[in-house]
Amino acid sequence: MIYDLIIIGGGPAGITAGIYAGRQRMKTLLITKEFGGQMAKKATEVCNYPGFEKISGIELIEKFVEHLEKQESVEIKFCQAKQIEKQEEIFTITTSDNEKIQSKSVIVATGADPRPLEAIGEKEFIGKGVSYCVTCDGPIFKNKTIAIIGGGNTGLEAALFMENYATKIYVLEFGAEIKADQENITDIKKSDKIEVITNASVKEIKGSAMVSSLVYEDQISKENKTLEVQGVFIEIGSQPATALAKGLVDFTKRDEIQVESETFSTKTPGLFAAGDDNSGPYKQIVTAAGEGCKASLAAYDYLRKLNQQK
Amino acid sequence: MIYDLIIIGGGPAGITAGIYAGRQRMKTLLITKEFGGQMAKKATEVCNYPGFEKISGIELIEKFVEHLEKQESVEIKFCQAKQIEKQEEIFTITTSDNEKIQSKSVIVATGADPRPLEAIGEKEFIGKGVSYCVTCDGPIFKNKTIAIIGGGNTGLEAALFMENYATKIYVLEFGAEIKADQENITDIKKSDKIEVITNASVKEIKGSAMVSSLVYEDQISKENKTLEVQGVFIEIGSQPATALAKGLVDFTKRDEIQVESETFSTKTPGLFAAGDDNSGPYKQIVTAAGEGCKASLAAYDYLRKLNQQK
Repeated sequence: MIYDLIIIGGGPAGITAGIYAGRQRMKTLLITKEFGGQMAKKATEVCNYPGFEKISGIELIEKFVEHLEKQESVEIKFCQAKQIEKQEEIFTITTSDNEKIQSKSVIVATGADPRPLEAIGEKEFIGKGVSYCVTCDGPIFKNKTIAIIGGGNTGLEAALFMENYATKIYVLEFGAEIKADQENITDIKKSDKIEVITNASVKEIKGSAMVSSLVYEDQISKENKTLEVQGVFIEIGSQPATALAKGLVDFTKRDEIQVESETFSTKTPGLFAAGDDNSGPYKQIVTAAGEGCKASLAAYDYLRKLNQQK
Repeated sequence: MIYDLIIIGGGPAGITAGIYAGRQRMKTLLITKEFGGQMAKKATEVCNYPGFEKISGIELIEKFVEHLEKQESVEIKFCQAKQIEKQEEIFTITTSDNEKIQSKSVIVATGADPRPLEAIGEKEFIGKGVSYCVTCDGPIFKNKTIAIIGGGNTGLEAALFMENYATKIYVLEFGAEIKADQENITDIKKSDKIEVITNASVKEIKGSAMVSSLVYEDQISKENKTLEVQGVFIEIGSQPATALAKGLVDFTKRDEIQVESETFSTKTPGLFAAGDDNSGPYKQIVTAAGEGCKASLAAYDYLRKLNQQK
């Protein structure tokens, strides 16, 4: 069997693409390891998806999934897509269990994974004080001192969330200043638990069974400094999960899939990329959803043209 | 006083731009005649905004408005914006009551109005059997025979909605076939109340106090034919409300504002257009919302650069 459309990814972009594919009655398969993408893991309270003043990421994704599951022409398969190939006009997706599934069009909506810091001790202490997800692991650090690495929005939002648990929160930023929404910066400045350290290059995470300290270089004085912390949250951005499209698309320097920004098409006809994995700016839940919709309608138009040519 | 941002329009694009402007703590004014845009008037049940499986347009817009009203830095003004001008780096908006309001950046999110058919009798019978909005006026035609002009999605959705009221529904399409989502076409075919007439050029709407018939030319036989109908709904697309930006932007053939599709900027720096009024494809609630978000974040970036230059 050959699907009309395979959507890879179960975050807001992939799910919205699925909802629209269902409304267009396209024979569709959505492949994902799990639903939610970063939304279910990272965002604590979502306050910026229009229509919901405040909702947990997990609740919001449940509503998205319920909406998707109403689409009769959309099947869902829980596994990982490893590779996309195209021969003549047919795409073949190879999954992690080596299954090969065929489709006439593909939307890659695989999002992005947290970017590692690559400091000494980072890998060793994952789950022993090092984490990439305050929502998941924050409560473990009740009444502890922690460091958050990264002075962008994600880092500052993580720090604000951790105010509920930790007694002291250092935010370490590599650059000379924190770069985030004014709202976040203002809230950080108000907090008496949060201390921002700029020009900080993290060198090593130390401990024995669990993390006990962190060493950073002050890039102005070139001195190494030590902070006694029991937890380290790494919030320095994300790495798009785009390797599966290699050979069919162009990548940006940050490994994002280069797209045309009206239809989210790539250089391979019939292959689209929506959401955090593409080259577009302003990565938000609502923009991912909007892009998923446009990519899905563009895939529908692509298939119509393909059929007309025959 | 000079605002950071003025948003013109109170539909999904304008409101989302307002929510994000509030989160960025931009001093913002949102100007609109009323909230909702087409969403509050036209869409009967909204089934395609992710997160809400099914919700009335009016309820959904209420949720959007509640969300907007939480933004402390955003003021709302109910009036019509008539003209936008720019001098040096400051925009001046003239309102319908001749007030002049200044801002450093502007997002035009004025959406689109229903396009008139321009048939004889059309204007004369508005409110007397001629309507552009089934949601508003549909129930009046309970147990009546009606015609819907336009075989696109809007027309077919209007016909499906009118199944709840009318006894007989003609859908008249100018072209040789109806052009709409497969889902809509399938549902129309299932209905025993709905009859589609293609190649139909509507010439005149007739009646005395109220509409009593409609005359169309069959474009194949060139014959004039008459349908006895008590109501005529005109659903042939929309006209972007973009005249206020004349002189500052380029327009498409359909009077849409030409935008760059990553940031929704126009040829005038600091002036953006999001939603149904711009040149982009695929006009949906979720795409309008996504565009409003991107335009708002792009306006924020524009203001930062403007401040850095000083």
